Formats: sequence, structure tokens, C-alpha cells
Amino acid sequence: MKRKEYRELVSVGEARRIINSLQVRPEKESSALENARGKILAEDIVTKINVPPFPRATMDGYAVRAEDTYACSETEPVKLRLLGNIPAGSDAKFTISTGEAVEIATGAPIPEGADAVVMVEYTSEENGAVFISRPVNGGENIMKAGSDILKGERVLRRGRKLGTREIGVLASIGKKEVPVLRLPVGIISTGDELTNPGETLGLGKVYDANSYTLYAGVQECGAFPLLYGIVRDNESVMGKALETAVSECALILTSGSTSSGAGDVMYRLIDEAGETLAHGINIKPGKPVIIGIIKDVPIIGLPGNPTSALMIFNEFVAPLLRKSLGAEAGIRKTEDGIMGTDLRSEGRQQLLPVGMVRGRVYPADRGSGAITSLSGADGFIEILPETEFIEAGTPVEVTLFGEVEKPDILIAGGFCPGLDVLEDLTGLRFRTLYTGSSGGFSAISAGTADIVGVNMPSRHPEGQYRTLPKEIRYNIPTVEAMGLSGAVLVKGYRREVGLLVGQDSPISGLEDLPGKRLINRNRGSGTRALLEIKIEELAGKRGISKKEFTNSIPGYVSGAKSEVAVCEAVLSGKADAGVGLRNCAERNSLKFVKFAEEEYDFLVRKEVLDTPEIRKFLQTLSSTEFASKLPAGLQVYERTGEII
Amino acid sequence: MKRKEYRELVSVGEARRIINSLQVRPEKESSALENARGKILAEDIVTKINVPPFPRATMDGYAVRAEDTYACSETEPVKLRLLGNIPAGSDAKFTISTGEAVEIATGAPIPEGADAVVMVEYTSEENGAVFISRPVNGGENIMKAGSDILKGERVLRRGRKLGTREIGVLASIGKKEVPVLRLPVGIISTGDELTNPGETLGLGKVYDANSYTLYAGVQECGAFPLLYGIVRDNESVMGKALETAVSECALILTSGSTSSGAGDVMYRLIDEAGETLAHGINIKPGKPVIIGIIKDVPIIGLPGNPTSALMIFNEFVAPLLRKSLGAEAGIRKTEDGIMGTDLRSEGRQQLLPVGMVRGRVYPADRGSGAITSLSGADGFIEILPETEFIEAGTPVEVTLFGEVEKPDILIAGGFCPGLDVLEDLTGLRFRTLYTGSSGGFSAISAGTADIVGVNMPSRHPEGQYRTLPKEIRYNIPTVEAMGLSGAVLVKGYRREVGLLVGQDSPISGLEDLPGKRLINRNRGSGTRALLEIKIEELAGKRGISKKEFTNSIPGYVSGAKSEVAVCEAVLSGKADAGVGLRNCAERNSLKFVKFAEEEYDFLVRKEVLDTPEIRKFLQTLSSTEFASKLPAGLQVYERTGEII
Repeated sequence: MKRKEYRELVSVGEARRIINSLQVRPEKESSALENARGKILAEDIVTKINVPPFPRATMDGYAVRAEDTYACSETEPVKLRLLGNIPAGSDAKFTISTGEAVEIATGAPIPEGADAVVMVEYTSEENGAVFISRPVNGGENIMKAGSDILKGERVLRRGRKLGTREIGVLASIGKKEVPVLRLPVGIISTGDELTNPGETLGLGKVYDANSYTLYAGVQECGAFPLLYGIVRDNESVMGKALETAVSECALILTSGSTSSGAGDVMYRLIDEAGETLAHGINIKPGKPVIIGIIKDVPIIGLPGNPTSALMIFNEFVAPLLRKSLGAEAGIRKTEDGIMGTDLRSEGRQQLLPVGMVRGRVYPADRGSGAITSLSGADGFIEILPETEFIEAGTPVEVTLFGEVEKPDILIAGGFCPGLDVLEDLTGLRFRTLYTGSSGGFSAISAGTADIVGVNMPSRHPEGQYRTLPKEIRYNIPTVEAMGLSGAVLVKGYRREVGLLVGQDSPISGLEDLPGKRLINRNRGSGTRALLEIKIEELAGKRGISKKEFTNSIPGYVSGAKSEVAVCEAVLSGKADAGVGLRNCAERNSLKFVKFAEEEYDFLVRKEVLDTPEIRKFLQTLSSTEFASKLPAGLQVYERTGEII
Repeated sequence: MKRKEYRELVSVGEARRIINSLQVRPEKESSALENARGKILAEDIVTKINVPPFPRATMDGYAVRAEDTYACSETEPVKLRLLGNIPAGSDAKFTISTGEAVEIATGAPIPEGADAVVMVEYTSEENGAVFISRPVNGGENIMKAGSDILKGERVLRRGRKLGTREIGVLASIGKKEVPVLRLPVGIISTGDELTNPGETLGLGKVYDANSYTLYAGVQECGAFPLLYGIVRDNESVMGKALETAVSECALILTSGSTSSGAGDVMYRLIDEAGETLAHGINIKPGKPVIIGIIKDVPIIGLPGNPTSALMIFNEFVAPLLRKSLGAEAGIRKTEDGIMGTDLRSEGRQQLLPVGMVRGRVYPADRGSGAITSLSGADGFIEILPETEFIEAGTPVEVTLFGEVEKPDILIAGGFCPGLDVLEDLTGLRFRTLYTGSSGGFSAISAGTADIVGVNMPSRHPEGQYRTLPKEIRYNIPTVEAMGLSGAVLVKGYRREVGLLVGQDSPISGLEDLPGKRLINRNRGSGTRALLEIKIEELAGKRGISKKEFTNSIPGYVSGAKSEVAVCEAVLSGKADAGVGLRNCAERNSLKFVKFAEEEYDFLVRKEVLDTPEIRKFLQTLSSTEFASKLPAGLQVYERTGEII
């Protein structure tokens, strides 16, 4: 396989210049007002009417000449001759002179000659006359014609994205059909590894996420996405897809197949049918980006990795779409935050995916200290090449991935179904990353999580003892050993831990494990640590070494990353037993052989203890509702909610 | 006409309690992923796969055992036997042992035995072997299986509003059909005064804005609006509409016909077919609100006034919709701001519509000091009954009318087509309220506008002279007379002012006006003031008094509120001549008889002079592009942009 090396990368500034020079031409179309929400106005809207179109009564009452009421009072009401009644929607066919009044409904037009409305509360009617007991000023309870929108005014500018209020303005001036912009953007996903969501995933394949994120991203910019589906890494197939898209779209986005091997295909195709303007941007992850043009239709080739594609889309493509749809829509959604952790940069210009929790910004990259997963990234920050290090507390600007709802609490640590219950009951949004208990202790020590859930057992609180202490203690010894001072420990609840075995399995306890294939949890998991202690105990009783015992269990060294993976191994027959919670066994119809009860606690960063979100979390933890909703095998006890 | 008085109003708290007790039951439906944006998830989504599903190469290169590379260097590369090649999308059918490598593409699965990928840049291939010139660590350039999303994890909670990122997560785990909530909300507008947008507006009628704002508002909450159109104030027609809506919807919103007269109809209908829970909320503008229930379907009757309806919708209905769709969607869109002006309250609980400009909050009510029109309101603030006065600078919380784009500059003063040009060229959003020049001076003095455009002429800079000075001075004398110290005057441009007459009119100057019907501008308009000065001049030349001259012109005391109204009066034949700008005459195909050139200047509040928005405004004012784009009759001159 001969590889073509990347041509010279263009700078970020040069890439922006090239993209800015692209002509993306939206079409005009007419939209029914009720379907116009989120669309972009194609023309200035100048109103041909006043709103309100005539002076209106803003209260039920009597239209009068204000000067007729100046002298009246409760004790000396003025008597006016009643000419009639103007309900809402009728035309005001009366003319009022001194000493006269007309009954009027809210919203009805003020009759000729009247200049105020007396509220019905301050009047009484009798024999064709009305008695007014409180004076009004000229103009009182009247909304003047054009006082909201003045005839001839430009009420909305072309390029305005239509929201609730704009739709209301358009309805008020009688617009039923609205001129809006239609900017068709073709979306093509390329790559032999891609499978459509909904289809079965073969070995080595991944689902095509880019088609759908770009679809939603294009919509959010007010443009009109067109999906062309997955195209294989094959020159003629790709060529045909491009040709169709060029004939139907104002802009084409491809993703994938842009790396040095397969990327040549796209590059060659664009160069044959049109012109390549850039092949790689000098920003991470912009290396594989291609910018080209075929028959006046710009084509932008994005990276295949979904997060990278979304970052490049937001940084380079979304501004182009917004600009093409008019200046007003040209707002990039950014939010100011402060770095939540120290960050060492790679010393090159890059877009770094980040999560954002209550204004604090965390890297969502796979690097160290990342406790937010990529799928949980809220947006990204741009890091300049000269930046080597960003200290925690530094203000940064986050470009959001569209209209994201950001989480309220960042949680790490060991897996627990109880967290889902807490999330449901608090109504808060958790961003949870199951790092195992060990990862949890690190995350809280690094200050990257607000709360971590831990279930780490320990027999050796202070140094190594020859004889094992009777009691297993949970979490506190680890906190002490790590010298964690920035967090408090809040007692959580008890969880039943056991072996997960098939319904017909003869295994009825840890003593039956030798000779059976075990699927253990990964290192760093509290469950694995607990099993180890229990095995040591059992081995001690039998007078053999722990090593001897574990060596007799095939698969003891295995390390499944999740309870689900444990269950699957047992269900598929790859293992005879696994370790996990009762709840997991029940959900997967496995038999549960309990061997211990453990304590699942929470470490809460002191800094955040006083925030409303964390207070709500802790209140809920101690609530009876939470106690009643915990799934099987989990239960609160007298220490639940205790702060240590 | 016998009126039924309101029954006892319920308190705001009681209204919230009632609304909270309403059961609004959404349905579940399946949505194709590409149509799911903005919808609300009906079920928790638990992933059945890892993302990525297998360990993937993140770089093009060679999959190796990391320990094989530890000793290598550029000068002493290590030689590994090449087993083959894994392109993206293939399954990894190789097993790598010590001393072996496999070529691998970005995104391809890591083969058994390998634990790192060496980037292609640090390798060379030769005769079935690959030379590695840089060591890699275990795990380098590999994305582990499940490192983004772990199998069995709840990736999205029911109630989540689906945005770009959520759609990407769903695609990544292979979801093509998504369970979403459908909450059908019926919308009925009632009132004899209503006309559908698109139809001709009769006398006393207004366009139905509520159907469309509520439609958009319901959509924004993630619910599904159904329009039932306009229903007349008639018991049997209304009853039928309600019946249909009850059978098709989970909630019904009506608006209008809730005041004491017509409101009885709705109240009686609900009471007959179901139950009225509340008739009036003790908050302005909540008095006409009705809450009821028919056959388990809640009905909320909103005020007819569009802004009131939208406020009550946002304050009481939107939280109900969001709650019914799941806790996560229950976020009210609020923004913190500070009061931009002093505000005297009415001493009762109220929702006050406000505009928001760069964090400053202005009342958009019709009361004094309101320079933001209702159609320009961005949201509202809640004022408690015990609040009598809110001082400028007080922090307030604004509930936004949905996803509003707020203006950058607040502009008041005299009408000018040049402002639209400035808005287009700056790309900023102006909120403009044409108050006339006099209103402009007041707005800048009260600090309620950032910029006002003024064209107020003056002959009497210091007291009354017997003989008129030759020169008319613009704006500066007024600034001096008012003692305006908080603003600077920026010279704008010249405008041709004249008589607007029919194409065949014999009028060729002010001297022809006697005996002709004039449509004058309103008091406070600079144009009217200029006409007055010119007439005085002319009268002086003729040796008659100004009064004598103006008395000879029928309609001289008239006061059209806008140039458009002036043009219409002339076009319709109601007047023989009007006063205005050349541009207005040309746009309306009227003949323009110039009688003066005036100066249209800008007063800019000193406090905002240094903001980027105002700087951009002033730069644009002085630009050649602006000069070239001004419409006919407007032109810049040597003083344009000069700051005094």
C-alpha cells in the first residue's frame, strides 16, 4: 500500500479566508406562518398596517371625553348621556360630544370624539345614562393606533431567525405566508466501516453518527439538510453521489475518507470535476479537512470521527451557513466558563472537546484527567499553538455544540443503579462517567468530579497486619490513605454483592468456584477488591494461600469493564460465574448467590457542598422516597446521608 | 347589557397549585432519528453496545506490541515482521505476537495481541517488514472499546430534549427509531374582532396573533400544537370547538373572550361540560384567566391581548407542558439583567413585559419611560405587590419569550430610512422606536435609549429675539436648552425636506399652501417644527403674522404620526399636500417639492460610547460605504461623524 502524504496544511486563518470566499447561495421560498419557526427570513418585512390598527379600549367601560369627568367624584358623580354600545370587533359608528358616553368592550375601537375610557368599576348605569364616579385623564385606558407597530416601519429584517415573538409580530401585521430562505446542504458519509443506525453491526463496523449530527447541526443553522447516506470508499460510487448532490445542493458536506489513504479518492474526485482549495487545516483535528468546489457548489470534507466532525462543522461550516443566510443569523453560540482542571496542551493549535458543568469547563478528550466522555461533550475550546498550559481557574470561551442542555452535576466512580434513581428524583441532570471506585478517588482528588460513588473495601486501614481485622471497612481507609482533604464522605446505602450464575448452576457460594470459569471485574473496581478479600478470608479458613485458591479459578485474572459485560459472559456461556449486584442478576434473569453486603458511599467535593444542586442531591439521598424506590439488593440504613 | 362581575381571584400561588395538579398526559410515538430534533425522549435509552464497539486505531500506522518498540530509536529502528493490513471496516483477523506488526488504518479494529499503534510517520516498510523508529506506550493511538459509551449505561434519560449532540449519541448506538413524546395541545382563538392573517382587515378588526404565538410557544416546549382557528363569541359555536378539541388533545388553550362580558360564555361552557377550577388570577394581566377541566382534559383560557397571553403562557402554561413532558425539559428560560430605568410599580403583583439590551432591562409597557414597543419585548419580569419602586441598576430576572435574539442597540427618535441602512451595514440588531425628535430628547435624558436620532430645528438659541436670526440651527440648541449632559451629539447627515404632493398637483412651494388641505406631522416631530419655522419666515416676508398664514391652510393643525400616514393621506386624496422626506415621496410615487435641507444627528449616551456596538455604529456612520448606500434625499457631508 503506497500512501500519499498530506500536501501542505493551510493555516486556520487561511482556511477561514477560503471558507469566507465561498459563495453559498440560498433560494427563496414561501412558508406558511405556522411552519416558519426556526427558519430565516428572506426579505425585510415592512408593515402595511398599524398595530393596533385603530385606537382600542384596554378595559371594559365607557368611552368619554376626559374633560367631562374632571370634576366628578364618588360623592358627586357626573351623569353622561349613553349613546350605545361598542362590542369588540364592531366598527365605531358613534361620535361623542360633550356630555355623552358610549359603552365599550376591551379591544373595541374608540369612537370619534372620545379620548379616554372609564373602567366599568367606577360607573353605574341608569335610564339611558351613565354615572361616572372617578375622573380619567386624556388617553387613559386607550391603546393608540400604531403604538405597538407603526405603519411603514421595517418590523423584521431579512436574516432574522423566526422565533415565537417574530411569529407573533408577523401574525399581528397579517402575514400568513412568509418569505424564508432555503439553503439545501447535502450530507454524505463515507467509509467502508459505516453501518446505518437500525441495522445490525458487523465485526469491525461502527454506526454512522455523522449523517445525523450534521443533519441536526445544519437544521440548527436554519439551513435545509439532505441526506445522501453512506457511500463506500470507492471512486465511482463516490463520484456518482457527489454528482447527484452537486446538482441538488448549495453546499455539500462529506465526512470520513479524508485520511491519507482513502482521502486521496475524495481529493482526486474534487480535483477532476472541480478544484481543491485546501487539503488539510493546521489545527487538530483539521488535518484531514478538504475544501473544494465543483460547478460552483462548495464541498467541505470533514473528519470521520464524529466529535472531530462536529467541531470542524461548528468552527468552520456553521459560520459559513449562517453568513450565507444573512448577517443576523451569524451568531456563534459561545459561553464563557472557567477551566475546572489544569490542562497541558500539545503545543499545537487545536479544538478540544469539553464538558461544562455550572460554568466549569472540563476536557472531554481521552487524555488524562478527562472524566467527561466524548458523547457528553457540550462544546469545544480553541487552544492556540503557543499555549502550553491552561491553569484551573483560567477563563475560557466554549463554542457550544448547538443548543445543549448542560449537566448540573458531574459524577464519577463505580457503577450503581441507585444513581439513576437519584437522578430521576432530583430532576437534576447528571453527567455520569463510570470510572470504577479507584478512578473515582482520583477524580475527586484531581477536583474533576463534583461527586464520586465509591465502594472500596479495606481490611488494612493502617499498614499491613499479620492477622486480618474482623471488620471490613469501606471507603474511609482509602480516603485516609490518599489524604483526601478537599472532599467529605457522605454515607450512601448498602448493596448486596454476589456471584451471578445461570439459573441451573450448581454454584452456591464462593467455595464452589475452583474449577469454574469466572468472569471477574476490572482492577480498580470495588467489587473485584471485595471478592479478593472474601477469597482471602475463605483461603485463610481452609489454611491455603489466597494465591493457591485464586489459581484454581480459571478467569480470576479477567477484568470485565462493566456489570453488563459480566452478565453477557455468563449468559453466553463463556463463563460459569461472574461478580456483581443483585439488581444486575435479576435484570438479566441470572441467579444471584450473595456473598457480601457492601457500602456504597459518596465523596463530595467541599467546594461544591453548598451549591443548590448538591444540596438537593444530598436531601434526596436522605429522603424516604429514595429509600422506597431503590431497586432490589440496594437499601438505605441508619447511616445513609451521614456526613463524615 | 348586564355584566357578571369577576368571581374571587385566586392568588398566584393557588393558581400554580391548581395548574400543578392538572394531569396532562402525553402519548408515546416513534420518530425517525432525522426528525427527532427538538422532540422529547419518551423512554430512558440504555445502550446495548459499546462505543466504540471494539478497540480502534486513532491513527494510520502499525498495530504492535508496545514492549517491542521500547528500545528503538531513529538511529536504531526495530524491525517487525509484517503480517498484513487491516483497513477500516474489516474485522481484525490477525493475532500479533512478539516481533510482529500489522498495518492498520484509522478507525480499524486493533488485532488480538497488539496494544499500541505506531504512527505511519515513524515507520518505513521494506520486504515484508516494517521498521519502527520511535517507541510507543501501551494504549497509545488506541481508543478502547466502550471508552466513549459503555454498554449497559443509561445514555439518555426520558424527558431529554433532543439536540444535535443527543441525536449523535443515538446514532452512535444504532438507534434509528426513537421513542418520543407527543403532547397534542389544542389552540383556539376567540373573539368577534379577530381576522386570520392573510385576509383583509375590516373596520374594528385585528389580526389573530395568539394562534400563531401559542403555536410556536407550544412547539418550543416540545409539545405538538393543533390549531382550531378563530371561534366567534357564540355559545354554540364555541361549545362545538371545545368538544372537538377535548376529543383530540391533552390540553386546550383558548385566548380572548375571557373578560367579564364575553368571558361568561367560556366559563359557562366549561362549567356545563366539566368544572371551572379558577376564574381569574390575582396578577396583572391574569384577571381574565380561566382554568377548567372537561372530561379529564385541562383547559386554560388566556387573555386576548397577545403580549398578556404570551406572558401568562410562559409563566403558567409552559412549566406545565415541560413538567408533563418530563423533568429534564422543565427549565424555564431566564436571564439575569439589571434595570435600565427607574420603575414605579402599580402596587399589585404583575408580569411586566420588558426588552433587554446588553443586559439592561427596559419596560415595554405603554407606561411612561417605555421606549421598547410591545412587539419588541424579549420577555417579562415579575413584580411583587409589595414592590413600589425598582431603581435603575437593581438586578432583575427576566423570563424570556422563548429563544429570543436580543437587540444590540436601543434607538429612539425621529424616523429615518438611513437607520435601516446603518443597521444593515453594521450587522447589528437595532431595536428602533420612532418617538419623534422630542420623544428622542426625553429618552436620552431619561437614559432609556442608547442612541436617538434627532432633527429638531431652532431659531431661538437663547431666549426670544424680536428679529429672527438668519441661520436655523439643528439639535444643539435643544440639547443646550435641556441641559443634556449625559450624552454627546454626533453629527449625522443632511436630509431634503419638502411637500409631498400628487404628480399633477399645481403646488410648487410653501407659498401655494393657503387654501390647500395639508396633512401635517404630529407635534414633537422635527419636520413639523421645521415647517413652522419656514412658514414663519414666509409670513414675515409677506408682512403677515404666522398665525394668519397657518389659519389659511386647512389641516395645518393635523398631526400624522408617521411619514407613511402622511403619504397615504395624500395618495387617498384626503389631503392635497403633506410634509416629509424625498425618499418617502419617491417610494410612494408622489411629487417632492423641496423647501429645506435639515440636519439629522445622533445623541449617544456617554455611558455606552465605548461599547463595541456603539463604536461600530459610529464607524459605519463615517464610512464611505454608508455614504454610497444612503437613499435619495439623504447625504453625508463634511461634518458627518463629528462628535460634539
